[in-house]
Amino acid sequence: MNGPRNRETGEDRLIARFFKPLASHPGALGLTDDAAFIAPPPGCDLVLTTDAIVGGMHFFPDDPPGQLARKALRVNLSDLAAKGARPLGFLLSLVLPGDVSDSWLSSFAAGLQADAETYGCPLFGGDTDRTPGPLTISIAMFGAVPAGTMVRRAGARPGDRVMVTGTIGDAALGVKLRRGAAWKLPLEAREHLLSRYLVPQPRNELAAALRDHASAAMDVSDGLAGDLTKLCRVSEVAASIEVAKLPLSEAARAVLAAEPALLETILAGGDDYEILCTVAPGKAESFRAAGASLKVPLTEIGVVAEGEGARFLDGGGNPLPLSHLSYSHF
Amino acid sequence: MNGPRNRETGEDRLIARFFKPLASHPGALGLTDDAAFIAPPPGCDLVLTTDAIVGGMHFFPDDPPGQLARKALRVNLSDLAAKGARPLGFLLSLVLPGDVSDSWLSSFAAGLQADAETYGCPLFGGDTDRTPGPLTISIAMFGAVPAGTMVRRAGARPGDRVMVTGTIGDAALGVKLRRGAAWKLPLEAREHLLSRYLVPQPRNELAAALRDHASAAMDVSDGLAGDLTKLCRVSEVAASIEVAKLPLSEAARAVLAAEPALLETILAGGDDYEILCTVAPGKAESFRAAGASLKVPLTEIGVVAEGEGARFLDGGGNPLPLSHLSYSHF
Repeated sequence: MNGPRNRETGEDRLIARFFKPLASHPGALGLTDDAAFIAPPPGCDLVLTTDAIVGGMHFFPDDPPGQLARKALRVNLSDLAAKGARPLGFLLSLVLPGDVSDSWLSSFAAGLQADAETYGCPLFGGDTDRTPGPLTISIAMFGAVPAGTMVRRAGARPGDRVMVTGTIGDAALGVKLRRGAAWKLPLEAREHLLSRYLVPQPRNELAAALRDHASAAMDVSDGLAGDLTKLCRVSEVAASIEVAKLPLSEAARAVLAAEPALLETILAGGDDYEILCTVAPGKAESFRAAGASLKVPLTEIGVVAEGEGARFLDGGGNPLPLSHLSYSHF
Repeated sequence: MNGPRNRETGEDRLIARFFKPLASHPGALGLTDDAAFIAPPPGCDLVLTTDAIVGGMHFFPDDPPGQLARKALRVNLSDLAAKGARPLGFLLSLVLPGDVSDSWLSSFAAGLQADAETYGCPLFGGDTDRTPGPLTISIAMFGAVPAGTMVRRAGARPGDRVMVTGTIGDAALGVKLRRGAAWKLPLEAREHLLSRYLVPQPRNELAAALRDHASAAMDVSDGLAGDLTKLCRVSEVAASIEVAKLPLSEAARAVLAAEPALLETILAGGDDYEILCTVAPGKAESFRAAGASLKVPLTEIGVVAEGEGARFLDGGGNPLPLSHLSYSHF
């Protein structure tokens, strides 16, 4: 209701120029229709998720547009991975500030297209709008699992092993670096932490193995401590984690050695986009083997018990007092 | 990355308090998981669409929250209606400014819930975030059609009748009233125009009849002139509309009589959320009967021909010169 009016609207131009190449599925109709269609894979449930990222909240204004596009897509891909689902496609709602240029859009679309191809997750439709506020990228993604097999947060049972992929805490430390933390670190370690924040590495290759082995799973987006607490709550169990077993990168170990209080950032900082799951003891060995063959690092960090809440135990078996469990924008 | 950190994050509280009651489908898992699941209806294609509304662009800051919720949902419902699809559910990405109160959220959720029930379109999942910018509501909606029957924009053929539901131009005139247009109008007429802008009335009851009769269809969101032009382009046809046949409300007729130049606002202003479709001559009578039995007003406004572009003809059969075809935020 505020914009100029043109014969060929700017939105049509934007879509045809930058986003049509991403709409490779015939049901997307080249983004020339009100909606898209897809025949659901036979015998499958659809898995549905949505996540938005907002300038100044989830990324810095000077983050490269191609990386933002990847991040927006990957935070959703990570949800599908944790649910054991294969990506089918996504819808994009792109809310742009007035100063976005064609070259920005071109880089953004190129990043999005590269990941859409890598993850087999084409664009099915979208909406572009202007805002006087910050860039806001909302993605709704849909995937598929064999009917009835979506891996849930509820399902962890006493005795299950708690496992996590990759390393924890890197992205949260990366944010602190972006904000000027003056840690003495080799360039490589800095780069590692920064890149872990900038571009998540979702674990979609693990989806089928999760369906076969995990009793419960979720992706770690708001911090391991808070996310494990949520998993325990809906599973109606407790979990004990041995902090000494947490998988940390060399860079995170170096930072933690110099500043032990950062353990809380590592545990509660979020943006990990690793998978947290619980696995029955009898399936742990087979799950580890699956992880190894997929080259996805898996670490057993603790155990599920009766009760409630997640405890993080130090070397002496004493619970760490954590003042916060996770990040929240609220 | 900016917010405070709490044991029970504010987002969890928001979701549990305001949005969980909308998640009536068992596959939504009470919004306690990373994702939702749904078994697609057998023999159906899924129809996917997304539309966002942004404060200051698509609505006024003082619009009631319950009405905003309805508008956000209904602009998507209108897309499904035009495609002949039955709504199955939606995902909500809600990006909130800092000054949103619990009572605002409560009204917003109540409006959303009322429409979710009315249209049989439950909430499957969502994401809430903070923004320093305006309220932004992105909805991704999915529906179903019997396989292969989604009504497309492409498909209009020379000789088809051009038809439209309801009345055209009311919402665009409503915006002008909101901005202070000093037309002399009865209170009832003012209210009619204002409400047509505030809360669209999507034509979902017509979906099955569209599948059975329409050769092409779309919803009118950016203005009849521009939207018909788009339909003609992808159908590779031309259309001629007799302006005298346009269905106008009494209120719109009164405004137009006083200020004839507003015809362009009526034709190109948008926000109608009526359905524009083309119907083969042999099916027109049956379609009219279906509309009548559903109590959806249908008006034949013109005809499809070979060629390209949409022409709007005055009483003498001469094309009106339109300086703009549709609204655009770009």
